[in-house]
Amino acid sequence: MDFAYSPKVQQLRERVTAFMETHVYPAEAVFEQQINQGDRWQPTAIMDELKAKAKAEGLWNLFLPDSELGAGLTNSEYAPLAEIMGSSLIGPEPFNCAAPDTGNMEVLVRYANEAQKEKWLKPLLDGTIRSAFAMTEPGVASSDATNMEARAVREGDEWVINGRKWWTSGACDPRCKIMIFMGLTNPDGPRHAQHSMILVPMDTPGVKVLRPLTVFGYDDAPHGHAEVLFENVRVPYDSVLLGEGRGFEIAQGRLGPGRIHHCMRSIGMAERALKLMCERSISRSAFGKPLARLGGNIDHIADSRMEINMARLLTLNAAYMMDTVGNKIAASEIAQIKVVAPNVALKVIDRAIQMHGGAGVSGDFPLAYWYAMQRTLRLADGPDEVHRAAIGKFEIGKYVSKDVMNASR
Amino acid sequence: MDFAYSPKVQQLRERVTAFMETHVYPAEAVFEQQINQGDRWQPTAIMDELKAKAKAEGLWNLFLPDSELGAGLTNSEYAPLAEIMGSSLIGPEPFNCAAPDTGNMEVLVRYANEAQKEKWLKPLLDGTIRSAFAMTEPGVASSDATNMEARAVREGDEWVINGRKWWTSGACDPRCKIMIFMGLTNPDGPRHAQHSMILVPMDTPGVKVLRPLTVFGYDDAPHGHAEVLFENVRVPYDSVLLGEGRGFEIAQGRLGPGRIHHCMRSIGMAERALKLMCERSISRSAFGKPLARLGGNIDHIADSRMEINMARLLTLNAAYMMDTVGNKIAASEIAQIKVVAPNVALKVIDRAIQMHGGAGVSGDFPLAYWYAMQRTLRLADGPDEVHRAAIGKFEIGKYVSKDVMNASR
Amino acid sequence: MDFAYSPKVQQLRERVTAFMETHVYPAEAVFEQQINQGDRWQPTAIMDELKAKAKAEGLWNLFLPDSELGAGLTNSEYAPLAEIMGSSLIGPEPFNCAAPDTGNMEVLVRYANEAQKEKWLKPLLDGTIRSAFAMTEPGVASSDATNMEARAVREGDEWVINGRKWWTSGACDPRCKIMIFMGLTNPDGPRHAQHSMILVPMDTPGVKVLRPLTVFGYDDAPHGHAEVLFENVRVPYDSVLLGEGRGFEIAQGRLGPGRIHHCMRSIGMAERALKLMCERSISRSAFGKPLARLGGNIDHIADSRMEINMARLLTLNAAYMMDTVGNKIAASEIAQIKVVAPNVALKVIDRAIQMHGGAGVSGDFPLAYWYAMQRTLRLADGPDEVHRAAIGKFEIGKYVSKDVMNASR
Amino acid sequence: MDFAYSPKVQQLRERVTAFMETHVYPAEAVFEQQINQGDRWQPTAIMDELKAKAKAEGLWNLFLPDSELGAGLTNSEYAPLAEIMGSSLIGPEPFNCAAPDTGNMEVLVRYANEAQKEKWLKPLLDGTIRSAFAMTEPGVASSDATNMEARAVREGDEWVINGRKWWTSGACDPRCKIMIFMGLTNPDGPRHAQHSMILVPMDTPGVKVLRPLTVFGYDDAPHGHAEVLFENVRVPYDSVLLGEGRGFEIAQGRLGPGRIHHCMRSIGMAERALKLMCERSISRSAFGKPLARLGGNIDHIADSRMEINMARLLTLNAAYMMDTVGNKIAASEIAQIKVVAPNVALKVIDRAIQMHGGAGVSGDFPLAYWYAMQRTLRLADGPDEVHRAAIGKFEIGKYVSKDVMNASR
Repeated sequence: MDFAYSPKVQQLRERVTAFMETHVYPAEAVFEQQINQGDRWQPTAIMDELKAKAKAEGLWNLFLPDSELGAGLTNSEYAPLAEIMGSSLIGPEPFNCAAPDTGNMEVLVRYANEAQKEKWLKPLLDGTIRSAFAMTEPGVASSDATNMEARAVREGDEWVINGRKWWTSGACDPRCKIMIFMGLTNPDGPRHAQHSMILVPMDTPGVKVLRPLTVFGYDDAPHGHAEVLFENVRVPYDSVLLGEGRGFEIAQGRLGPGRIHHCMRSIGMAERALKLMCERSISRSAFGKPLARLGGNIDHIADSRMEINMARLLTLNAAYMMDTVGNKIAASEIAQIKVVAPNVALKVIDRAIQMHGGAGVSGDFPLAYWYAMQRTLRLADGPDEVHRAAIGKFEIGKYVSKDVMNASR
Repeated sequence: MDFAYSPKVQQLRERVTAFMETHVYPAEAVFEQQINQGDRWQPTAIMDELKAKAKAEGLWNLFLPDSELGAGLTNSEYAPLAEIMGSSLIGPEPFNCAAPDTGNMEVLVRYANEAQKEKWLKPLLDGTIRSAFAMTEPGVASSDATNMEARAVREGDEWVINGRKWWTSGACDPRCKIMIFMGLTNPDGPRHAQHSMILVPMDTPGVKVLRPLTVFGYDDAPHGHAEVLFENVRVPYDSVLLGEGRGFEIAQGRLGPGRIHHCMRSIGMAERALKLMCERSISRSAFGKPLARLGGNIDHIADSRMEINMARLLTLNAAYMMDTVGNKIAASEIAQIKVVAPNVALKVIDRAIQMHGGAGVSGDFPLAYWYAMQRTLRLADGPDEVHRAAIGKFEIGKYVSKDVMNASR
Repeated sequence: MDFAYSPKVQQLRERVTAFMETHVYPAEAVFEQQINQGDRWQPTAIMDELKAKAKAEGLWNLFLPDSELGAGLTNSEYAPLAEIMGSSLIGPEPFNCAAPDTGNMEVLVRYANEAQKEKWLKPLLDGTIRSAFAMTEPGVASSDATNMEARAVREGDEWVINGRKWWTSGACDPRCKIMIFMGLTNPDGPRHAQHSMILVPMDTPGVKVLRPLTVFGYDDAPHGHAEVLFENVRVPYDSVLLGEGRGFEIAQGRLGPGRIHHCMRSIGMAERALKLMCERSISRSAFGKPLARLGGNIDHIADSRMEINMARLLTLNAAYMMDTVGNKIAASEIAQIKVVAPNVALKVIDRAIQMHGGAGVSGDFPLAYWYAMQRTLRLADGPDEVHRAAIGKFEIGKYVSKDVMNASR
Repeated sequence: MDFAYSPKVQQLRERVTAFMETHVYPAEAVFEQQINQGDRWQPTAIMDELKAKAKAEGLWNLFLPDSELGAGLTNSEYAPLAEIMGSSLIGPEPFNCAAPDTGNMEVLVRYANEAQKEKWLKPLLDGTIRSAFAMTEPGVASSDATNMEARAVREGDEWVINGRKWWTSGACDPRCKIMIFMGLTNPDGPRHAQHSMILVPMDTPGVKVLRPLTVFGYDDAPHGHAEVLFENVRVPYDSVLLGEGRGFEIAQGRLGPGRIHHCMRSIGMAERALKLMCERSISRSAFGKPLARLGGNIDHIADSRMEINMARLLTLNAAYMMDTVGNKIAASEIAQIKVVAPNVALKVIDRAIQMHGGAGVSGDFPLAYWYAMQRTLRLADGPDEVHRAAIGKFEIGKYVSKDVMNASR
């Protein structure tokens, strides 16, 4: 049992931290300014600069466990780096480590054929294009993924796709060129073998990005969370990944590392919110004392510290288990961090908002924006409720067979 | 002890409810559409229509206890109506019962001279102009109101005002013509006699509305929450209300009813969020069951019901105490509802968001916007922490003198 | 809407308060001493004295709405008195207002025949005997009352009763002479018409009080919570109350007022715990300050005040509804207080324990004992979970029929 | 970073687990029976048997890092074993790893002279005697240890000790032969150099064990938590440990490992409570389903799993830090587990109680007893409030000097 980071990881942490402090944090205001000038839905110059710098420093594709295409780090090696990147909403992209590209690239590495890799994986790894993942639908409860209704029907050598997706994050960005669509292809198959994943280029006729959704009041431009309509969209039959009806199989593989990444980023954001809270608590005074010395304020700081430390350890442990015993055995641990990390981040950010007074809910500090973004993570990739139920069933499963639990469902 | 509404109140509740259902709820989408077309910072036609209708129905100035100028209702008679109006963010204005006008009108009724009443109170009561209240400042912790630094200095027959205010709600609206400024006038006076309230017309030279602040991502147009700069703003000396150094005295009187109003509106919003949550829980299904029958979802509904009921009773009781024993004796009760009501609303709205999935954080439902607005109420008019401390001290005060508690502060 | 107590109630409150202060609180230590000397399971002399005094003062059977047999108070008139009595664990009995006698007497008033009333109700009203209620069983989940398995089988003119009950409170007290047994009599009837209530004298052959259960480490002597074995217990057939299979019907009627009583007592206990907490917070110092001025301690006091006030208002409102619209319409409100009151009491008592340090968990203060007793109330008469589910279903029922909710159970 | 137990630790875990399952769990009922027969304050035969067995198996003094006198395990090696022992209230003693002996033995190893070691450490290590630690006092707030008032005054070659202590755990057990007394010896010294630790044999004239305190009704016999009076107790001057005025210095050293031990035991108890909760949830049914499938019950199981896992990781990490960077640098981490572990245990045990219904609060399951014992740990060795404040100050200390925080205290 060794809780220290390896020298290799420690060195990478220092490099990523230095990059964040030197380049990313100072760029936040610039990014916001560039977005608010002219068309919000165009990529910013500052992000291109940041990407070029990180690439030049070799801090690139750190997320990818494949050591030829990426950095070849394990989950528990990458996790501490994702945390640092996550301390800024514009932190991951400079390193080409932003969702949903990371998950999409992993899928392509594992399941795409050579032609697909050449066409889509390569530019994604180069950071010259971006991608989207179209799964959630407005018309059904997405907590049960088998509810998905968008259809892809085979007609000869083609799929004909019809349906409506939303929360297709990144689809508003003009750099987004490719989408992984997940939909119903084999309605008569067994419950978890009815859906497939299919590559759909954004410029395919019939693909209509209807609008960006807002999250609380934020549009998250130029990334954006799109509602996308598929009207008789036709793509070649071999655009299907892995095979017909194997969508859930891919989804399972995609989700594990993705969750570690998301959760560590949440922790990084919570950690920075705690920093802001501490700084505010000593820079403002009321009733003759710094805020930190009034009432229970220091307790809120202490609670935040404890919760963050616990969430981090839980996530690192899940990463370690994925590396050592695999996603399947680590299923409960992965579900646990999915519940814990965003909830901890929300609690810490909310306390930081409170310590900032009116400034906390405004745009003068990043806290309200962070809150909004973290709030979506209690819903994205399955709501808390689904994961909590899974954890509970896993626990009960130590004492009774799964069948018994589902019997009189 | 009688928990029933009087026939008079019951009848008014029915009329206000009917107005909301017939006119206001259907107007919400129209309002949003009108705001999003063209200049967001212009008043909407739909609001003018709603105001005309409510005025015609005699549902006008219900908040004003003065029976000649207003409806002459007591706090506990008006409270149940404020709840109903509060169920929509555009609900109070049609009845000319929107903050901050209500508080400002009460101040003018009590403390303005006849000329001031003629000039400002009359059009406010008529609903032809709106008003703002400039108190909070960006540079100091506003939880301690005595921190206020903006200065008004007497020069002959005039006040010369300099300083910076923010969260001056409503100041972005072109209909806003008058502002009540609160600032430091007598820096050498006793702690609570250093500040005054002064009437400042919006078009006075030197008044600069710098920008609308955002709340989470919302600008709350066309109302808006402004940062306002006062640069050598000159107004006649007799623009001061009640007298020099009596600002806190007025503030105390202003806050009581204002809190009842705010809290009842929060409860109305929570009640409607619960309705949306229930409706969603039976209209969507996952794993073969309506959401309402999955896991602990029904518990969240039950908790919401209990919390709302308790918050409402607490607020009505505070209103009753204000009516019968006065604001001073009801001070702890008023502080209690200030803490309870927005926190309950936030909890209920958050659960409703969760039940809605991604739709909940989007603009397709009003929940995220409501959440943002309620979140500000844990800060506005003093953060939770200040009120909680006051309640605690009041409680301790039953056993030991106030001096002892403050002794070794 | 009138939140004030009527003059009649106010006067009774003052009399009951005076009695508690003059007689009951000073008797607590005496009671404990008498219990700890000799046989714990014998009634105490001090209780007899207290009963005689209260009876002499006419503070007797205040709980009974029947104005000939009891005080003739409504639920909302009695509730504030129950609160005061509940501030001591030995508070209700002096007034002949202790559970389970109160509920049992109400049942007898409504459902017993004249002979039964003469034999059992009269001495109960006189306070010369006590009673017990045998419902919960060790072998099944009592949250679902239809699980009850103890059988009463008719043989000619007699019932033959077999089974095992526990948490039969009061059955250890030698003054306990009569028990209301609830058990399965009509196993083939509809779900809620299979059980009956039957009067069983404690001295009937076959009734075996096996042991007193402990609650945490307390035996609650001389009252006690008994495990009772029924072995071929024979009672006359006409000992059945109301009629065969009508047990749940009686239970429904019994529970409403009983819940108001229990909840108000919980609130009285919470109120006194808050008093102890405040007193301790100013009488002990650490780090140079009274505890009340350290960290978040005052927030705990404030939270307790708010929670108590809300729980009280919720309970009084439920009482008011029972009086005005009846138990059935007030069903959700009654379930709400059943959840809220003990949980609030537990929170407040736990905070009071914490403020007392080690003394709080010891026998030197009543807090730990109170905690233990309140903890049982989250289980007795149905666990929180059952009531929360009922409240949720009631809420959902505003939007969809009950059948739909139960359909795919 | 390696979250796996080393082979050495893993093997010890298996041996300790096997011992618990084979010997300790089955002995729990026997122990209770032996205590309840005859004099509760005599040691039990079963404990002697368990100790002999564990000693014979070499599972002895595992807590002691000294490899000659004890097992020579590091904190992070011993922690997982303490967890397993902690799953039973009678679990640690068989391994000679029970508090307060473990802490006392560590103190003796480090600070006692050879004669003292021979006389007291040796039999303690052999398990033939037990010991107590007398620090907390009934008359002052012990959250501030400098409040301690019991005096030891030097008279020639002797200390003369006067004062009153309580929560002197273990002092009721006749096997307890030695006490470490902490009290005021140098009232004029600097704040943390006024107190000393002095060895006081239990049979010294003037030592009076007044009574065992109860914890929620439990007396914890034969161990017991004593109130002890010191009346002119005389011991040789060289009974002082380390030196006059160095009591806090010793206390600091004593507390670190002690906290790890206590916290891991809490986690072991929580883990077993979760096991009981799961088993109950599938063995009882209501409304036609096992409890595990009703409402939010499974969420309570899931929450318990997450909280336990986080608390364990936090504690193991603190142990790791103690081993690698030392107690001083790990001060915040040690304070964190002191807050987290008992609170998590209490939450889990409370949920387990709820799942058990009435059985949960009774003596038929160990849950209520466990709850009571864990509840004391939120007070013992400093209440939550003190540790939370320390954590908060440590956090603030990253941004501002300690002096600033204490300046206007």
